[in-house]
Amino acid sequence: MRILLLNPNTTEDLTQLMVQSARRTAAPGTTILPITAPRGFPYISSRAEAQIGGAIVLEMLAAHHRDGDAAIVAAFGDPGLRGARELFGIPVIGISEAAMLAACMLGRRFLIISFTSVMRPWYEECVEMHGLGSRCAGVRALEGAFGSITQVQEEKEELLLQLATSAIMETQADVLIPGGAPLAGLADKIKAKLPVPVVDPTQAAVKMCEALIALKPGKATTGTYRRPAAKPSFGLEEGIAAHIAHRDG
Amino acid sequence: MRILLLNPNTTEDLTQLMVQSARRTAAPGTTILPITAPRGFPYISSRAEAQIGGAIVLEMLAAHHRDGDAAIVAAFGDPGLRGARELFGIPVIGISEAAMLAACMLGRRFLIISFTSVMRPWYEECVEMHGLGSRCAGVRALEGAFGSITQVQEEKEELLLQLATSAIMETQADVLIPGGAPLAGLADKIKAKLPVPVVDPTQAAVKMCEALIALKPGKATTGTYRRPAAKPSFGLEEGIAAHIAHRDG
Amino acid sequence: MRILLLNPNTTEDLTQLMVQSARRTAAPGTTILPITAPRGFPYISSRAEAQIGGAIVLEMLAAHHRDGDAAIVAAFGDPGLRGARELFGIPVIGISEAAMLAACMLGRRFLIISFTSVMRPWYEECVEMHGLGSRCAGVRALEGAFGSITQVQEEKEELLLQLATSAIMETQADVLIPGGAPLAGLADKIKAKLPVPVVDPTQAAVKMCEALIALKPGKATTGTYRRPAAKPSFGLEEGIAAHIAHRDG
Amino acid sequence: MRILLLNPNTTEDLTQLMVQSARRTAAPGTTILPITAPRGFPYISSRAEAQIGGAIVLEMLAAHHRDGDAAIVAAFGDPGLRGARELFGIPVIGISEAAMLAACMLGRRFLIISFTSVMRPWYEECVEMHGLGSRCAGVRALEGAFGSITQVQEEKEELLLQLATSAIMETQADVLIPGGAPLAGLADKIKAKLPVPVVDPTQAAVKMCEALIALKPGKATTGTYRRPAAKPSFGLEEGIAAHIAHRDG
Amino acid sequence: MRILLLNPNTTEDLTQLMVQSARRTAAPGTTILPITAPRGFPYISSRAEAQIGGAIVLEMLAAHHRDGDAAIVAAFGDPGLRGARELFGIPVIGISEAAMLAACMLGRRFLIISFTSVMRPWYEECVEMHGLGSRCAGVRALEGAFGSITQVQEEKEELLLQLATSAIMETQADVLIPGGAPLAGLADKIKAKLPVPVVDPTQAAVKMCEALIALKPGKATTGTYRRPAAKPSFGLEEGIAAHIAHRDG
Amino acid sequence: MRILLLNPNTTEDLTQLMVQSARRTAAPGTTILPITAPRGFPYISSRAEAQIGGAIVLEMLAAHHRDGDAAIVAAFGDPGLRGARELFGIPVIGISEAAMLAACMLGRRFLIISFTSVMRPWYEECVEMHGLGSRCAGVRALEGAFGSITQVQEEKEELLLQLATSAIMETQADVLIPGGAPLAGLADKIKAKLPVPVVDPTQAAVKMCEALIALKPGKATTGTYRRPAAKPSFGLEEGIAAHIAHRDG
Repeated sequence: MRILLLNPNTTEDLTQLMVQSARRTAAPGTTILPITAPRGFPYISSRAEAQIGGAIVLEMLAAHHRDGDAAIVAAFGDPGLRGARELFGIPVIGISEAAMLAACMLGRRFLIISFTSVMRPWYEECVEMHGLGSRCAGVRALEGAFGSITQVQEEKEELLLQLATSAIMETQADVLIPGGAPLAGLADKIKAKLPVPVVDPTQAAVKMCEALIALKPGKATTGTYRRPAAKPSFGLEEGIAAHIAHRDG
Repeated sequence: MRILLLNPNTTEDLTQLMVQSARRTAAPGTTILPITAPRGFPYISSRAEAQIGGAIVLEMLAAHHRDGDAAIVAAFGDPGLRGARELFGIPVIGISEAAMLAACMLGRRFLIISFTSVMRPWYEECVEMHGLGSRCAGVRALEGAFGSITQVQEEKEELLLQLATSAIMETQADVLIPGGAPLAGLADKIKAKLPVPVVDPTQAAVKMCEALIALKPGKATTGTYRRPAAKPSFGLEEGIAAHIAHRDG
Repeated sequence: MRILLLNPNTTEDLTQLMVQSARRTAAPGTTILPITAPRGFPYISSRAEAQIGGAIVLEMLAAHHRDGDAAIVAAFGDPGLRGARELFGIPVIGISEAAMLAACMLGRRFLIISFTSVMRPWYEECVEMHGLGSRCAGVRALEGAFGSITQVQEEKEELLLQLATSAIMETQADVLIPGGAPLAGLADKIKAKLPVPVVDPTQAAVKMCEALIALKPGKATTGTYRRPAAKPSFGLEEGIAAHIAHRDG
Repeated sequence: MRILLLNPNTTEDLTQLMVQSARRTAAPGTTILPITAPRGFPYISSRAEAQIGGAIVLEMLAAHHRDGDAAIVAAFGDPGLRGARELFGIPVIGISEAAMLAACMLGRRFLIISFTSVMRPWYEECVEMHGLGSRCAGVRALEGAFGSITQVQEEKEELLLQLATSAIMETQADVLIPGGAPLAGLADKIKAKLPVPVVDPTQAAVKMCEALIALKPGKATTGTYRRPAAKPSFGLEEGIAAHIAHRDG
Repeated sequence: MRILLLNPNTTEDLTQLMVQSARRTAAPGTTILPITAPRGFPYISSRAEAQIGGAIVLEMLAAHHRDGDAAIVAAFGDPGLRGARELFGIPVIGISEAAMLAACMLGRRFLIISFTSVMRPWYEECVEMHGLGSRCAGVRALEGAFGSITQVQEEKEELLLQLATSAIMETQADVLIPGGAPLAGLADKIKAKLPVPVVDPTQAAVKMCEALIALKPGKATTGTYRRPAAKPSFGLEEGIAAHIAHRDG
Repeated sequence: MRILLLNPNTTEDLTQLMVQSARRTAAPGTTILPITAPRGFPYISSRAEAQIGGAIVLEMLAAHHRDGDAAIVAAFGDPGLRGARELFGIPVIGISEAAMLAACMLGRRFLIISFTSVMRPWYEECVEMHGLGSRCAGVRALEGAFGSITQVQEEKEELLLQLATSAIMETQADVLIPGGAPLAGLADKIKAKLPVPVVDPTQAAVKMCEALIALKPGKATTGTYRRPAAKPSFGLEEGIAAHIAHRDG
């Protein structure tokens, strides 16, 4: 199985962080194909950036979808997920979606934590978008500045552990989800210190991809996720334009 | 007052259709400044196209936001609305949002109609995004093909009237909203033939812009809609890149 | 445009407070026609008082609806709104409804503040009645007594500002709504000191009236807000009895 | 136990219809004290009429609350219920509320039927007001005119039976509630012909009153249903004015 | 009337506690028939124990349903309620259900308290199961260990009173429900010290049984609560096996 | 990986049907260990039977949980799932839960079909229990009798295909889930004939087990799904009694 790991951020180090985490749980026959956004932002952290980053996800998929059996949108918040799912023939899964669905099988309500409060509204809207509000115990975040996005996991590990510990008690959450690409792999480091299951979003997405590939559910030819009819466009990146115009075979 | 009417579609004729409708209800001192998407799709009709079109809306606003006191995202489904609202200092209003909120003051539940069933899932998700599900009696659409997007209003007027009439009875809807840029101005033609109030989305958006401009509510400097901190980017259209980087003054 | 500003309270000074606020944002051609309840309570502050005050609103409209192009129910909580909307041919808008809908265009969730906790349950039930629970970050109120209803705005301005400031941070609210007729005009005084947009309910209602008048949506002749069939009555105030009996032309 | 049966309609014959139904299920020691609205409408059937009728309910309670251990608001839709519950020291129960709560103990979802579609929106808003939307399978009503309000039960019995039978199958409802004072007692006539339990609203209210009287829960002195502080008024019916002003002992 | 009071716990002293409370409010002609679980747990306090205890409730009913006109499932959380309601011809009511429905007639939202936080998730899921989430102000519980289950009411009375008092203020709850068989009768001891109505679950269930018996709603022969078709089984307790197989007459 | 496939029904042929379906998608290193209920019903099809069958699931797990790395509750409706998840150290997943969560990654809303309408209420309550109501387009079922439970899949294949085809169009569902153990494997036969993805519940559960085993989330030691404290019992099957009493090591 070949799984595309699409990082909508342009930071190659974040891709690596996620790839390492992903490979730790991938099944023996699974190959993770990492792709870093060729343009966009070092790290998406607002609705506007997600709007643009989500459009770039579609370009990335247009370029690479033939190389994978499934694809992961590897930014918490799942930018571009719905459009990608509609447009391409392979399963496309978001890392926040995958983490939340896995968490649903481990407890009543999950808690999402982030290293910065900037992400809260976007994450909360992501929970609502997936219709999982009743299964979410909240989104909690650290206040205050941080150094570099690629080092923040080390920098804040202790504070995140404290935040998680107190918020779990306060909210009765049954599962913890560390949100955001920069926290990829954190679950493995902290799970032994926490009293509830911890789900790594990238790892969850890999396993969900493997699951969907094995289930062979097929692509819709009707309903709301069938591929849209061919549509011309002007001024778009050529790959996505060709795919939307059904010019790419 | 200067109101930017941003058409995320590239079809200039649709812009004109909306401008004409808009000007009929604009207050004496209001100037409508129409802007047609410089790139993108002739007519957005899927989630993927809305993802891309929404990103283009941000570029259009980056180029023109200084010229307006408020802006309208003039595609039903409100592509890019949340990001736009977050990013710019002027009020930004979507035409579907404006129509639904106006309809809330006219009855218990509103009905949205479209000339093509292709739009249904996107419109339904738009209703949910605004948290107005309990006020919506449904989204109904004509089945079958249509000729040109700019002529569909004339072509389907009679069928839309029939659809609206029967759906109003069936759903007990109190208000009708003809959805989609190609139906701009239809409300004025059919309202006399229908037994419930009819709201034109573009017109509603103009009046809501005038309202917000007059209310001078101010731009958030905290909360989830404050302007995000400056962020570098790579490979984006220069105007939006500059605005997001706070390089545009 | 002539807009009836119906104060369901009998306190003329509150009417004046709202009229002054209303006129500051009314469009050039708009005339505000203030009408104070001829009977009832100095200030409605319970469900029972709202039940009675709402019935008096209907009497006020029966007497004056021919003089206006639209009407405002000018008590936060919108007493009598649904009945009024059903009964009369002109648009009728509540000040809490108008403020909440305007706030929906300015952020994700709004916060309502009051000068007294007595109003909380009524306000909360008003939010639910409008189906806007998912857009409301809460209703917060000052504890403790206050002097006169017409002076409470000055008396409590500082405390309300503190309450708003801390509650905005705590709830992540994006918009502030100062609730209640006695706080009319407060928004203009405090908005510069607050980090999120502030909406004045009376002003919002004026602009929403202007919007609906311009949109000319028409009065329903079917659905749940058509005018009810003629009905006799006994022992009611003559004007409303005549209107309900269709005896008033 | 003395239970006030307050008919907010002025039609004495409807009061008698409900009293007969009520007495069939009242416990041996229970006395039903019927009171017909001294002013108002022969039969409330719109939101506006409910607004006024609900205010009259408060007057009726101000006059009679000392004579009862509990009171029933005997119009489906529960006009004035919240205000009455707040204002008086005895339990006050609405017939629609009582029927719905009883139905909750008999099945998953209940179906409400009415002899006229005019009542549908008001009944639906009543279900929402009580937060029981997820337990309601719908409100169904006969179309078409009817003769006299006091004879409609006989006139439409067969049609109501047909409506109920088909709607139960269609909606999977587990319980049937015949809504509206004119249908009081119908349950006893039709229950043998229907495949699900049928609840008579007036009877349910009597039993719920007996239950609350026996439970002696006490009147709130804090919270949202404590008695409001004394309030002066002008131009109201003397009894309710005195009670609201705390002038009635 | 004969009401079966089925204690799904094996602790006879808890049955007695509930019987005493029940008899204080039972009507003159009502006989309470207490039945203690012949097998199972001294006190159900987890989802797993409720799963098993609920199955035992069905066995208890199979053995005794002919002796009662209605039955009470006398454990807060209502184990086995849905199955019992489906399976037997008499009304079956849970004590938490009865308490919550009674509380709905006394205020906007009720608060449930427990002597141990172990019960919280089960109680919360019970509120959701009944679709009453919007009427519940929360479930609060004491932390810390307790002595014997039959003495915990005395042991913790003072702490429960403190918990209730502060939580009522904090949540604006209008009604208090002391949850759990071990707190049966507590309402009568503490209601005079609390500022809102207090509902005893066992007492509420008795009164609701009396109500349903008097209403004679009948047993469904269609819909989701009709008696299931005869079904063979293997290895089950003989009484329930016979009833499910329709072998018991 | 060893996955316990626990069939709460006593029909060995159903177990085989599910095992065959399961093995088709299991990963190379996965062993499916089938266990058929040693007592209970040939086929659970009511709430009461699910109550008892769910208790038997706990007994089956007590006997076998040490032999598996995860366990599947292999009856649509997920009897006993919450208790099992609470009680045992390995992940426990229900087949309806797994199918619904997988479906969430394939479209907006899923449709569940059944070969008999008897299952509808139980399935609908299962959807609600998981908080997935907004993702479900409905539960549809064939009317009419069927022959044997183990042959019903062949007998009704054509009718189920017709039901699915029409219901998908009518409800706009994006994904189809054939519900119930007797339909295990049907997805593979019909998916080529249907225009939307089809998810086999047993297969989905296998893949979700593999996912959770790989993710190693750990067992909660706090929160609502920690293992309950040791509890004595009387008269229960020895294995489950020992596990609940912490007597099983």
